[in-house]
Amino acid sequence: MSGWVAVAGLGPGSAALVTPEVSAALTEATDVVGYAPYVARVPERPGLMLHASDNREELARAAHALALATDGRRVVIVSSGDPGVFAMAAALFEAIETGPATWRDLDIRILPGVTAMLAAAARAGAPLGHDFCAINLSDNLKPWALIERRLRLAAEADFAMAFYNPRSRARPDGFARVLGVLREACGPDRLLLFARAISCPDERLSIVRLGDAAPEMADMRTIVIVGSSATRLIERRGTPILYTPRSSA
Amino acid sequence: MSGWVAVAGLGPGSAALVTPEVSAALTEATDVVGYAPYVARVPERPGLMLHASDNREELARAAHALALATDGRRVVIVSSGDPGVFAMAAALFEAIETGPATWRDLDIRILPGVTAMLAAAARAGAPLGHDFCAINLSDNLKPWALIERRLRLAAEADFAMAFYNPRSRARPDGFARVLGVLREACGPDRLLLFARAISCPDERLSIVRLGDAAPEMADMRTIVIVGSSATRLIERRGTPILYTPRSSA
Repeated sequence: MSGWVAVAGLGPGSAALVTPEVSAALTEATDVVGYAPYVARVPERPGLMLHASDNREELARAAHALALATDGRRVVIVSSGDPGVFAMAAALFEAIETGPATWRDLDIRILPGVTAMLAAAARAGAPLGHDFCAINLSDNLKPWALIERRLRLAAEADFAMAFYNPRSRARPDGFARVLGVLREACGPDRLLLFARAISCPDERLSIVRLGDAAPEMADMRTIVIVGSSATRLIERRGTPILYTPRSSA
Repeated sequence: MSGWVAVAGLGPGSAALVTPEVSAALTEATDVVGYAPYVARVPERPGLMLHASDNREELARAAHALALATDGRRVVIVSSGDPGVFAMAAALFEAIETGPATWRDLDIRILPGVTAMLAAAARAGAPLGHDFCAINLSDNLKPWALIERRLRLAAEADFAMAFYNPRSRARPDGFARVLGVLREACGPDRLLLFARAISCPDERLSIVRLGDAAPEMADMRTIVIVGSSATRLIERRGTPILYTPRSSA
């Protein structure tokens, strides 16, 4: 029996957003490896080994999965959203690059998913309907100076922006600095979406102007989308629609 | 009976990448509206009306869907990939913004999907594993000067970049100019992925250096991904892995 590793995107939370390809891989797997809250989303069944680990242990988790596959196991590494967007796919390849040569020739597949920014955008309307960028605001893996530089250039390019990992208990102040940079670069009227726990029972959306945005509006389960200069609201009964037209002003 | 409109992302091509949420909406629909090749991907069944239209008729298509829903029909507008990324969601909201006031209060949902750049990235490895941007290279809806400006700023920000609609028969020359700008901004060694017809039977991937890239490598069914300065290859038997590490150099 030959082993394999699949890195599977479970989407943002709801089972209705898990692709059939990912469900099929989970059915064929002998082992599931991942951050505990994501492993908890996989249905248990006899013969399926679940290996849950802590956050920030991506490289160890990847090495564990590769070692299991080398032993002939069929391993799914589960990621939230899409595994290629600020998630486990890059960590797996980092482990392969620095690991034993035999790991390179394993059967490895990345199974795409619905990434959080697209699920969040869909709930609010279409704020990413024109050119946009995605930035991981965690400064665990890059210096603040680079984040600031990217924010300023993205604003100058008039991209809509989606932020992953805007704020955590370990980094309570970074997002306040992000909002400060954006206020300088985009002015107070720019529209922002805070989308928390998208597609989960405790989902919460709010749309505010940059002048009214506060750091406390975000946590690690929040995606923040900043509109471009063209992003606007369509008022109606209930929640307005937030969208960016396809053509540029 | 009250009508609704859902804009559904069918993913890049394979049925294994269509979410259960989208499949459920298609099951409940009375009408499917969309560009003919996407409508052709919807299974026919008695009582389901299929309304296929030409490309570049997005606003008329959206108005048609809204009129049907006003009459109490349950309408799915089908999009390739994710409907919020260079697809039908923004066109629908443009139609709503300029249309009759009653359209604003219709039941409207955007159903996210696996967008082409993420499916393409997954096939090649994880080239979008760090901060990135997505740019529509069609200049039907924006001036070339803006495209060039965004390319230069994205290169300066050291984003990986994903390009949608890089080249068409109506715009044979734009992509050559894009490659010229990128060569100036990123040098000849930058890695590029050309991913055509991702997840379809005629899928084709190629990875080249910018100095070897030619405009003819792309057409309207191609997604082009340009690596950041950190994007690299892991050589192995068969196709190498293309990926961008999570941390910055």
